[in-house]
Amino acid sequence: MLRKLTIASLVGIAALQGCAQSDSNPITKNAQPIAPQAPKNIIMVVADGMGPAYTTAYRNFADDPTTPQIERVVFDNILVGNASTYPASVSGYVTDSAAAATAMATGVKSYNGAIGVDVNKLPVESVLHHAKIRGLRTGVAVTSQINHATPASYIVHNESRQNYNAIADSYFDERLNGKIVTDVMLGGGTQYFEREDRNLVGEFIDAGYEYVDTYNKLATLPKGSNVLGLFAPKGLPPALDDTRATRLSYLTQHAIKHLENDQGYFLLVEASQVDWAGHSNDIGSAMAEMADLAATITFLKQYVSENPDTLVVLTADHSTGGLTIGANGDYVWSPEFLHSMKASTRSIARDLPTIDQPLAFISQQLGFAFDENDHTFLEKVITNEDENAREAGLKQFLDMKTNTGWTGSGHTGVDVEVFAFGAGSQAFAGQIDNTDIAKRLKHFVDGTAVARGEKPVPVSQPDSENANRPCDFKEDWRCL
Amino acid sequence: MLRKLTIASLVGIAALQGCAQSDSNPITKNAQPIAPQAPKNIIMVVADGMGPAYTTAYRNFADDPTTPQIERVVFDNILVGNASTYPASVSGYVTDSAAAATAMATGVKSYNGAIGVDVNKLPVESVLHHAKIRGLRTGVAVTSQINHATPASYIVHNESRQNYNAIADSYFDERLNGKIVTDVMLGGGTQYFEREDRNLVGEFIDAGYEYVDTYNKLATLPKGSNVLGLFAPKGLPPALDDTRATRLSYLTQHAIKHLENDQGYFLLVEASQVDWAGHSNDIGSAMAEMADLAATITFLKQYVSENPDTLVVLTADHSTGGLTIGANGDYVWSPEFLHSMKASTRSIARDLPTIDQPLAFISQQLGFAFDENDHTFLEKVITNEDENAREAGLKQFLDMKTNTGWTGSGHTGVDVEVFAFGAGSQAFAGQIDNTDIAKRLKHFVDGTAVARGEKPVPVSQPDSENANRPCDFKEDWRCL
Repeated sequence: MLRKLTIASLVGIAALQGCAQSDSNPITKNAQPIAPQAPKNIIMVVADGMGPAYTTAYRNFADDPTTPQIERVVFDNILVGNASTYPASVSGYVTDSAAAATAMATGVKSYNGAIGVDVNKLPVESVLHHAKIRGLRTGVAVTSQINHATPASYIVHNESRQNYNAIADSYFDERLNGKIVTDVMLGGGTQYFEREDRNLVGEFIDAGYEYVDTYNKLATLPKGSNVLGLFAPKGLPPALDDTRATRLSYLTQHAIKHLENDQGYFLLVEASQVDWAGHSNDIGSAMAEMADLAATITFLKQYVSENPDTLVVLTADHSTGGLTIGANGDYVWSPEFLHSMKASTRSIARDLPTIDQPLAFISQQLGFAFDENDHTFLEKVITNEDENAREAGLKQFLDMKTNTGWTGSGHTGVDVEVFAFGAGSQAFAGQIDNTDIAKRLKHFVDGTAVARGEKPVPVSQPDSENANRPCDFKEDWRCL
Repeated sequence: MLRKLTIASLVGIAALQGCAQSDSNPITKNAQPIAPQAPKNIIMVVADGMGPAYTTAYRNFADDPTTPQIERVVFDNILVGNASTYPASVSGYVTDSAAAATAMATGVKSYNGAIGVDVNKLPVESVLHHAKIRGLRTGVAVTSQINHATPASYIVHNESRQNYNAIADSYFDERLNGKIVTDVMLGGGTQYFEREDRNLVGEFIDAGYEYVDTYNKLATLPKGSNVLGLFAPKGLPPALDDTRATRLSYLTQHAIKHLENDQGYFLLVEASQVDWAGHSNDIGSAMAEMADLAATITFLKQYVSENPDTLVVLTADHSTGGLTIGANGDYVWSPEFLHSMKASTRSIARDLPTIDQPLAFISQQLGFAFDENDHTFLEKVITNEDENAREAGLKQFLDMKTNTGWTGSGHTGVDVEVFAFGAGSQAFAGQIDNTDIAKRLKHFVDGTAVARGEKPVPVSQPDSENANRPCDFKEDWRCL
């Protein structure tokens, strides 16, 4: 897979000049000018909900407790800075995933719930659109349904993330220069793409897309296919319950296989369910989803070492659940209780009524032996007739064993970490805003296109009832 | 104050070679080699308890709500990476301030409670000792008592942070080549330094130190004095209650005035009470202490612009209280309720019994008008006869108004941010460990000394019952 570097780095410098001039980070400011190398391929990885406590928790979770030191993890070698995540001022200081994804995808702050539209509900161009128009192949590989807030903000425009069917429709209907926007789409979502009122899967097939609904079928497709892969009705099963625990890594590898081409590609990868574990205050699933993300980044590190014309940027859209490593005044966190889980607390809670020896079953599924206090606590959980209450009880049990803290079921406003490696990774160092990511990636896409000898490509207008609105501010994608 | 740069940068390169070789951060790894410039003066700033949520919260707190964007704050221009904070494995994954300060001061992980000693309770050399031995002047400026865990770990050695009197004694009794270790000590602590059993203040005066006990008297001392300044019995008053709200900035300016000299200096600055606000789950005080820190960094930015041979490193030792920006499932944080506080909740709670119109008094002290729900809540607080319960009620009230989350009264294990600017700041980029800070600062001190034409100075042994133990591991300060 080793390929020659063909992108002129000087073009990268020109393209990034705007960023470099506003950079007040001492590392880059004091350094001699370094040529930011425009990458041919861009892989944007969003770990939904992964605030700083998640990455530290994962390092502790992955620690070998038999050694005195805590081993560094794959994230530790690629940290470059932090990003602020706040939405447009109308939504205050705490973002949802839609506003944050719109910011990271388009460079424009919007209101909570916005999918690729600004505060006036006007469509704004994403880096994925930017790439597609300039001849790059485009893809998404996610563990949510593919029409969930984060991937949707890169692909389409909608005033509300809740309009799942309309968003799915737009995946086929919104076109760029007559072409479907995304060449490879891997994740969940059959219930939105095979509906009674519309068979979008059939329409994609008729438009030349390969359709697969199992991981194994995905492996059979010839390289370079246009692919719609939907592996679950909505989101994929949790990592702890899926047939492939590292399914994000698997989907990422296959997405790249179909995206690689001489013109380059843009791929959005989302570890969607870190966020879902956070919302659910489920520390076991949070660590399992982080492990899948770590496997994905480990694969991408190897890929970039063989394809140095590729840039990978990893960040989060926000933190979820107010996770803390230790709580309740005790200076303790005990991730060893999460090392041998064989199923999610949700599936254990679901299966309990059918089990003859429930305590033994829970012990076997969680992977550790119980003491007398554990028995006393879990007896009450087992006898609860409500499945959700049983699940909550199991999660509370693991919080007590590990001494994990949460402050609620929603998002929090803490800055998130930014990781980057490969061509051009220097451009993301220091304290940036989530909108800076889209702006710098768009510059890189421009640099790559110009390096190929192409002139800047005018962006087509999307179908929109607002299309006749005057083009009066610079971030409006119709004005570019 | 503009002075010529006299440090040979090549010496800095040699001194830092060890760090550079192990650096796997993509920013520095991919960059052309940059000469790390050995600073003449080093100012280490520790914001005790300032996890990532505190810096983001401060940006929101400092935001001008009348503008659409959130203004960048002084920290945003100096972020270079993150540091892990875990203690020696015997203490698990969550550190206390003593182990963290020992790590940052000496480069050695130790147990929770350790003051400048390793896991075997043997003394280890701090960067402050390292600087003193090599002829630099040394100082601490803190808002806790000066013999609290963080400054103590830089100055002396004790098996337990709780031995406040013994630690205070050591400030005078432990010597380096016969000299008192610290030339300038500013903070609180008269009750430890003027005791019935020992008058340490008198001993320092007899040894040639200027002694002051008010901020105004501090201003009268001639430049270049050796100073013991103790401005409170234990810690200084909270920023919200002190006569100078930005007293850390004031102490820092005066410490530098007395430390500046041709050989350079090492100064430890600690925003000690960010941590105390966190332990107390007091969001109002947390933001006021952060504002004092921001004023301190703003002063230091100006100082470094005029004295470019100075390095400033800012980090935290851990996060405290499990602070989250937003909580309880609501995507809201409302720092505007903290903008006009005139006193801490502690002092309001203390004064309430003497006040005729308590609701009006609280409204005036907190700086905003109350609605009917506020009245209902606060009526119960006012009538509580227990002062601590009144204080807790006022803090709970502000948590509700701002939607602030906490997960307990203790520390949490999340990585902390690292900020650096000035000469050599490149050495702290990316993901580092708290021990790396001490190691890199010691290299810089060596580089500065060698640049002056001095040979490496052998380190004297501290008085210690373990002094005869074989010198068998490289981090033992007696082996350097």
